[in-house]
Amino acid sequence: MKGRHFISTQDFSPEELERLLARAREFKIDGVRERPLAGKSVALVFLNPSLRTRTTMELAVTALGGTPVTMNVGTDSWTLEHRDGAVMNAGKTEHVKDAARVLSRVVDAIGVRAFAGLENLEEDIADPVISAFVRHAEVPILNLESAMYHPMQAMADAMTIVERCGKAKGVKVALTWAPHPKALPTAVANSFLLAATRLGAEVTVAAPSEFPLPETVMQMAAGNAGSVRLTTRPDDALAGAQVVCAKSWGSLVCYGRPEVEAKVRKSYDHWIFDEAKLAQTADAFFLHCLPVRRNVEVADAVLDSSAIYDEAENRLHVQKAILSELLA
Amino acid sequence: MKGRHFISTQDFSPEELERLLARAREFKIDGVRERPLAGKSVALVFLNPSLRTRTTMELAVTALGGTPVTMNVGTDSWTLEHRDGAVMNAGKTEHVKDAARVLSRVVDAIGVRAFAGLENLEEDIADPVISAFVRHAEVPILNLESAMYHPMQAMADAMTIVERCGKAKGVKVALTWAPHPKALPTAVANSFLLAATRLGAEVTVAAPSEFPLPETVMQMAAGNAGSVRLTTRPDDALAGAQVVCAKSWGSLVCYGRPEVEAKVRKSYDHWIFDEAKLAQTADAFFLHCLPVRRNVEVADAVLDSSAIYDEAENRLHVQKAILSELLA
Amino acid sequence: MKGRHFISTQDFSPEELERLLARAREFKIDGVRERPLAGKSVALVFLNPSLRTRTTMELAVTALGGTPVTMNVGTDSWTLEHRDGAVMNAGKTEHVKDAARVLSRVVDAIGVRAFAGLENLEEDIADPVISAFVRHAEVPILNLESAMYHPMQAMADAMTIVERCGKAKGVKVALTWAPHPKALPTAVANSFLLAATRLGAEVTVAAPSEFPLPETVMQMAAGNAGSVRLTTRPDDALAGAQVVCAKSWGSLVCYGRPEVEAKVRKSYDHWIFDEAKLAQTADAFFLHCLPVRRNVEVADAVLDSSAIYDEAENRLHVQKAILSELLA
Repeated sequence: MKGRHFISTQDFSPEELERLLARAREFKIDGVRERPLAGKSVALVFLNPSLRTRTTMELAVTALGGTPVTMNVGTDSWTLEHRDGAVMNAGKTEHVKDAARVLSRVVDAIGVRAFAGLENLEEDIADPVISAFVRHAEVPILNLESAMYHPMQAMADAMTIVERCGKAKGVKVALTWAPHPKALPTAVANSFLLAATRLGAEVTVAAPSEFPLPETVMQMAAGNAGSVRLTTRPDDALAGAQVVCAKSWGSLVCYGRPEVEAKVRKSYDHWIFDEAKLAQTADAFFLHCLPVRRNVEVADAVLDSSAIYDEAENRLHVQKAILSELLA
Repeated sequence: MKGRHFISTQDFSPEELERLLARAREFKIDGVRERPLAGKSVALVFLNPSLRTRTTMELAVTALGGTPVTMNVGTDSWTLEHRDGAVMNAGKTEHVKDAARVLSRVVDAIGVRAFAGLENLEEDIADPVISAFVRHAEVPILNLESAMYHPMQAMADAMTIVERCGKAKGVKVALTWAPHPKALPTAVANSFLLAATRLGAEVTVAAPSEFPLPETVMQMAAGNAGSVRLTTRPDDALAGAQVVCAKSWGSLVCYGRPEVEAKVRKSYDHWIFDEAKLAQTADAFFLHCLPVRRNVEVADAVLDSSAIYDEAENRLHVQKAILSELLA
Repeated sequence: MKGRHFISTQDFSPEELERLLARAREFKIDGVRERPLAGKSVALVFLNPSLRTRTTMELAVTALGGTPVTMNVGTDSWTLEHRDGAVMNAGKTEHVKDAARVLSRVVDAIGVRAFAGLENLEEDIADPVISAFVRHAEVPILNLESAMYHPMQAMADAMTIVERCGKAKGVKVALTWAPHPKALPTAVANSFLLAATRLGAEVTVAAPSEFPLPETVMQMAAGNAGSVRLTTRPDDALAGAQVVCAKSWGSLVCYGRPEVEAKVRKSYDHWIFDEAKLAQTADAFFLHCLPVRRNVEVADAVLDSSAIYDEAENRLHVQKAILSELLA
């Protein structure tokens, strides 16, 4: 896998994903015994906030002997234009072409976090910022959550499923939409679905009819080794589920129309994931990528006896695996 | 002291504090000879700005062989809700419960800076943010200045007193209120008073009548080995003083009413600490935690021949001592 | 050069600058073989954004075995007052005197970025913030771009010229003003001119009549080993040029009057550096410090076949040279 970008789990075969998970498991059990990134450095470029990703990427790079260089775009460094050929006479002060090529000269990989703009669906589906980094960089780009994907999170989720179920293949998973005070991107849900199905899980996505996942993602999931099914009834998804993952995302039906979207979203507040819903599963354990709006998306009682801290810890281990396979 | 939180000097016996000071002295004289934090990491979580604390904590952790991971809450990472059971449908994006537990999985200690809100006295006295971290974390919490305490600063102050006076026990100390363009928390003054008296100093606090320190703090100080006395006349505190520490804090009498408080505070501009006041002491040396509003809180002439840079440097040494005793 | 500040290339003899460039060349070819900054630390204090400087300074310090401590003034740390004797009753929360002296106690050098305020020309020419750091610090100050100078950039530019032309002495260089949506400081242009002439280059500065460089800078350049000539006609500068460096800066004629300045600047949009202009040179290669407003300052076609990424990479190498000569 050396030298490849890590943009989406779809870019890797099931065998490659399994190899990464096995390596992550070794790091978790045995710790780090070598310094495969000695003398190497990784830029961590954030266009949006982060707690887990920032912390665990800095720790993973350092533990492997490398040097992380973290920057917040627009405060630490310059704002970024991503459209090739743009006449840069407005607010954006540096082109991704230049940022990516300059960083490529001085670091060995570039991690990028750039959330969806939530204004134009077509544009977000094109994943414009991370795509611009891929287009222009001369070193591997690591996706720290883009408009469309959050593969590091999805790998941690997969690792947690394998830890608890012994495997991912054939495991019955419910991915259920949850309410939230704000419209959020679909990236986490997309990547969860893609990684789980690629590793053979049988995923049912439960969401109100106005909250589909992007068609392209559903098609990719359908082509994976596992299976994907869509329902608008939570109970339908939860029956028999061994794993539940809750996540909020904004309505694709009224994308870019925030007032309308907020009203639609508000009408599904009862989709909060609580103990009554958990009781409908086959004794499932609960996943959430965090941060979570407690008692809005998910009830305290569910979170407090869930697998979310194992899941967060596993970010560290899968990232060590990805860094060492791609960069060492 | 291994594995304990470091929230207030009151949580440690005088003997423990003296052991920390002795260790700090060794670090200052001999430098760091081992790497007791090798393979360990410390999260440094800032809800407020910092120069000395940020710098010296990063340097202390690194010098001891560890990895610091610094983040600004609300810009680098998510805004934090600290009230247990909160329905998180407003502005706060992550609960301290989740932040603290996630960080506990990937680092060996969590330093937290969270100033007083200055709106509700009872709430600030409960020290809500750092208390939430203590409640939820599974690793030691290090107080980098909370609503009520700034124990790292107080230890550096105590170290400076011992350096200059040979001991703290029986040393006559004046802690004098100073004017400031803004209402400030009492944390620095509280911890200065608590650490100095716990180590046996005889402290006189001089402040205008509207500017008491919290009653709970005065009672704790009164129970310590040294002594505490309160006066509203600076000359009363300064006569015979071997050490003077100036610090501004907001009025507890009109807490949460900023217009009223500002007017009251403004009427004490003549409390600026200047050479005339210093001349009233028994050739005392001068301490201030910094940052200081020069020529408002304290006159240039006092600051420029003071012990403030020794005091600031000692932050590094006491923090190395605390980190190595609690985490190594 | 040990222990000296690095504020402007004018403070160093041509021989010293050449020694630094030779050292940089060694670092570029051979990599880092020792850890001359082991046990040392460098504070990197940013009052303004940075991508290249932040990244390459952190990487250079780390590669040499040292510890960088980076902070953004006003967000990470306190806002800074630089006027000695100021009565600090307004917005600024800490004096440079205190910040510089405190940092001097705990780090081995302090890098400072502080752009020109663009309000008062006389004040900017006095380079007030970095001068305050120099006045008060007890360790070397490294200029990471001040109101007047950007010597790290100028050294990288000089290194790139020597790489491509075999030497700087006698090389014909055009420094041409470029349009920009905002008024910018003259620091980059000043230092480019000063370093190039000090190393013997023959520089022609092309700029509209309202956009001179500061008189003091022109005089210093005239006193250097090379030569400097001023023209208002780009073709006059480009004819025979072996190197072209484009850079935008604000009008010194209407400094501090932003509306007037913007109108004047707008009338020179046709100064964009494009392929037609490049064709007028003697097959020159193109330099720009970055960030660049593509298709406003410089056309994509020029940038995409330029030396700008070599130039940016060379930041890393010259900074390693400067750090190791001044601090090791």
